[in-house]
Amino acid sequence: MDLDRALDLIKKSRAKIVGVQIPEGLKRMATAVAKEIEVKTDAEVIVSGDPCYGACDVDLDLCRAADLVIHIGHSEMLEGDQLHDKVVYVEARMRADVKEAVENAADLLSTRRVGVVTTVQHVHRMEEIVEVLETRGIEAVVRSGGDRTRYPGQVLGCNYEAARNMDVEEYLFVGTGQFHPLGVALATKKRVVAADPVTGNVSVVDALPMLKRRYGAIARAGDAERIAVLVSKKPGQKRMDLAKKMAALGEEHGKKMVLVYLDRVEPDVLVNLGVDAAVCTACPRIALDDQTKYPVPILTPPEFEVLMGERKGDYFLDEVE
Amino acid sequence: MDLDRALDLIKKSRAKIVGVQIPEGLKRMATAVAKEIEVKTDAEVIVSGDPCYGACDVDLDLCRAADLVIHIGHSEMLEGDQLHDKVVYVEARMRADVKEAVENAADLLSTRRVGVVTTVQHVHRMEEIVEVLETRGIEAVVRSGGDRTRYPGQVLGCNYEAARNMDVEEYLFVGTGQFHPLGVALATKKRVVAADPVTGNVSVVDALPMLKRRYGAIARAGDAERIAVLVSKKPGQKRMDLAKKMAALGEEHGKKMVLVYLDRVEPDVLVNLGVDAAVCTACPRIALDDQTKYPVPILTPPEFEVLMGERKGDYFLDEVE
Repeated sequence: MDLDRALDLIKKSRAKIVGVQIPEGLKRMATAVAKEIEVKTDAEVIVSGDPCYGACDVDLDLCRAADLVIHIGHSEMLEGDQLHDKVVYVEARMRADVKEAVENAADLLSTRRVGVVTTVQHVHRMEEIVEVLETRGIEAVVRSGGDRTRYPGQVLGCNYEAARNMDVEEYLFVGTGQFHPLGVALATKKRVVAADPVTGNVSVVDALPMLKRRYGAIARAGDAERIAVLVSKKPGQKRMDLAKKMAALGEEHGKKMVLVYLDRVEPDVLVNLGVDAAVCTACPRIALDDQTKYPVPILTPPEFEVLMGERKGDYFLDEVE
Repeated sequence: MDLDRALDLIKKSRAKIVGVQIPEGLKRMATAVAKEIEVKTDAEVIVSGDPCYGACDVDLDLCRAADLVIHIGHSEMLEGDQLHDKVVYVEARMRADVKEAVENAADLLSTRRVGVVTTVQHVHRMEEIVEVLETRGIEAVVRSGGDRTRYPGQVLGCNYEAARNMDVEEYLFVGTGQFHPLGVALATKKRVVAADPVTGNVSVVDALPMLKRRYGAIARAGDAERIAVLVSKKPGQKRMDLAKKMAALGEEHGKKMVLVYLDRVEPDVLVNLGVDAAVCTACPRIALDDQTKYPVPILTPPEFEVLMGERKGDYFLDEVE
């Protein structure tokens, strides 16, 4: 993590109050980061205590309270707003060596030409990934992911643009966890091999169980009378126009729709509202990852279109923006 | 609940987008209220999906997204801000008859002159309460609670001004739950009889168990090295100056203090931050009601002053504003 650039910017901008926003996994560093800023600059530090789920989740209240906000752990996504202009992004990069994991993954790849994607934590290793594959005689295809991502080959939980429209039959995902490679599989309908640089483990991703669960949720939502359309307050997840479109679509089909504006989507909200289902226009991971936490089916907008008969049921994880 | 005034205001103001904010206990009405507004006016409705804990907790993001916000269930507390000017307060009043409960309470009262306090849900019954007491030969003293409350005799979870500086030895609290009468007992150090109009039950409030728990929390915070000072984003709970004062006080006494700005105070925040204790400048109920949920002691500002030796340990539930 390169805090020096941020410290320079604080000094240059003569910020008096500096906000610090850190995702939960790194939050333990907050006190130390705050002290370092206070010792090395003249600024007073305020740490954001709310959970932070990504660059989509810039703390706008913190931006209002501070002269400058250091957003740690994610690459820039948002621009064009006076509040976002206050944000300095400090990416957190993993030291983990990718070589072993990619070597292991090469054994699982079944073609000689693969699309390569990763997350921001490992994107600085892309060159190395490509080299390892090439020494194994595998051609690596890396492409840019559009406006929401910063680096070629970078994917987000909500964005698999870097994996789309590629003339390959197979993908290699380098990174931790199952969600991102699953997202690649759902978005591309192609075979995905996941390589975890931290553990060295490799696996072939199977999207079928998730697809079954999602078809199940759509089926259960069929009986719903009252449906909430959830709109996030988070600046990179706020899709009011899409939400209004979904509400209108539901009303057309005789559903009672209610627009619900909220910071965090949580099970209690839906219980207390007494709705039978929800369409979530915020982060797609809420529907895909956390469905079991909720008492009623939560659909992504494309899934709701499938339910309303406006879209063929052949895929669900579409781009949300 | 008188929605007609709100409907009139919506029509008169020609609001196109109307926000609706309802506390959790009444949230099930949200869909019906939204539909009524949409049918009876030309406005489109957006419901706040975040929990709402009081008039201190006006949804400012909803105010930004809407032309007018209907805030249901609480009486007005905030003023003087462009966003607050958009808020129309619709109080929810309980139909519950207070007569039986007050009759029962009169039997428990030990003096002939008592201070009477209640919550906004029952404040329209104040006259009746006073009458019942007078027929029993008991003088009722009712006084105004200052800027944060709207009605004489009204108390809030954070404000017992209406019970202070009264020449009585005893109080009658009319309302549900234990927190408010306990607050009166802690704030006044006097005997409090609580009368619940919903159940008709009456009881004498015992503040001693709470006081013991609070002394325990202060004692446990004594060893803390790293202490978070929590500042709420909620407009009626945001006390940044007080928080900075607390942080400075802690630093003076050799503690490592970190200012944490957040919407909702939750156990995970403190776990993830890795602090040993917290001073909460938001709602005092967080420390007093919810301490058992938290892994580390959470103190109110007066309690932290007791810990730092700047205040005598004879009472803790001071006014926060």
